[in-house]
Amino acid sequence: MPNYKLTLCYEGTRWRGWQKQGNTENTIQGRLEALLSRLLLQEVEVAGCGRTDAGVHARAQVCSFRANTDMGCEELLDALREYLPEDIGAMSLALAPPRFHARLSCVGKTYVYRIWNSETPNVFERRFLWAVPEPLDLDAMRQAAAALLGRHDFSAFCSLKKMKKSAVRELRRLDVLREGEEVRLVFEGDGFLYHMVRILTGTLLQVGRGERAPEELPAILASLDRAQAGPTAPAQGLTLWDVRY
Amino acid sequence: MPNYKLTLCYEGTRWRGWQKQGNTENTIQGRLEALLSRLLLQEVEVAGCGRTDAGVHARAQVCSFRANTDMGCEELLDALREYLPEDIGAMSLALAPPRFHARLSCVGKTYVYRIWNSETPNVFERRFLWAVPEPLDLDAMRQAAAALLGRHDFSAFCSLKKMKKSAVRELRRLDVLREGEEVRLVFEGDGFLYHMVRILTGTLLQVGRGERAPEELPAILASLDRAQAGPTAPAQGLTLWDVRY
Repeated sequence: MPNYKLTLCYEGTRWRGWQKQGNTENTIQGRLEALLSRLLLQEVEVAGCGRTDAGVHARAQVCSFRANTDMGCEELLDALREYLPEDIGAMSLALAPPRFHARLSCVGKTYVYRIWNSETPNVFERRFLWAVPEPLDLDAMRQAAAALLGRHDFSAFCSLKKMKKSAVRELRRLDVLREGEEVRLVFEGDGFLYHMVRILTGTLLQVGRGERAPEELPAILASLDRAQAGPTAPAQGLTLWDVRY
Repeated sequence: MPNYKLTLCYEGTRWRGWQKQGNTENTIQGRLEALLSRLLLQEVEVAGCGRTDAGVHARAQVCSFRANTDMGCEELLDALREYLPEDIGAMSLALAPPRFHARLSCVGKTYVYRIWNSETPNVFERRFLWAVPEPLDLDAMRQAAAALLGRHDFSAFCSLKKMKKSAVRELRRLDVLREGEEVRLVFEGDGFLYHMVRILTGTLLQVGRGERAPEELPAILASLDRAQAGPTAPAQGLTLWDVRY
């Protein structure tokens, strides 16, 4: 059966995340599968490169699915654009090599966490930002971030209590950038655990506010204990930014 | 009584425009007056520099109001930020000269109409854009725009049938800009009639699509007849961008 690669953008605000839950269409995967199944008159299962949480956005959620159809890619892409709701955008669709799988073939992902670090409200982009008005010590955050780079067991930064599989991930990049009143945390790695980016963000914010020293990070990491890390930052500031194959 | 100058940002999507209608709080002016009256324990009337329509946004809606209070500007600004809904942002508040009036003192306004000119959807900024996927001839639109510059009776571009006051306005700038997949129309003038920017936009779009020649603009303007101009472009693409005093 032909294999397809579809890239989606979405605003996660009103969705219960990517992963389908039962037969409902309140998840992005559930909605997309239902639409593709109706359009292609067959049951379609979609694999996504990352399972974004409820409220998390995506600039590039790459998906793959197999289907038999006479429809060309352009025709199917037009149909998706016509029937998907306005907070889900079909960016591109192409035939993929037979063994391509959006999740299994993925070799790297970039997530960006956007913080609005100002007393002045940001009305226009508020759905994509976490508003943190207090001053942040970015140098301390950068020092803390440096201790997290590399290949580690990130269990301390994962919300799942029992991990069946390995919690070892490679964090290749963790940049703390200021762009005017916005602070952006850019996470690049081979993969991320459940809530990992949001717990890393919550912990780095504690460092930025001076509630924790950057020197504590190696011990938190080594503890493998979720209770040692900071709180989970809100979903709305997080966007799945880019995926590499 | 002390006179205040307040600058607001807002996303107009869910509001029935700026101007209050009766005692309801579904307009921005109505909501703001009700909040200021509660905070300052007196009836407060607010003048806005421009009456944005339902669904139109503002990056800088300047307002003025008079009130007697012991509250300092910073304290009142903090209270506004706490109690205004998240789609209305209080950007700044300061004491103004006694004769300052947000509408009467205004000497110029800039509106920007944003068009998303692409087949690829824009999920993240869709509330601020009018999606027009067809190719647009920007040179023809610029030629049409040039014919509109200057001091004219703009009755042909006004939705009010009976104008009590003069419909003469000076259009000082009408730029047609492309920024990637976005086309921006920038309107600067001493003032704008009801629906004027949106009818100008609807007419320029007809020119951009080749449905009308740019040479027709002087005759439309001279007709003083609303029926000669193009349709009113949707509210959501329009933003009150800047105000000059």
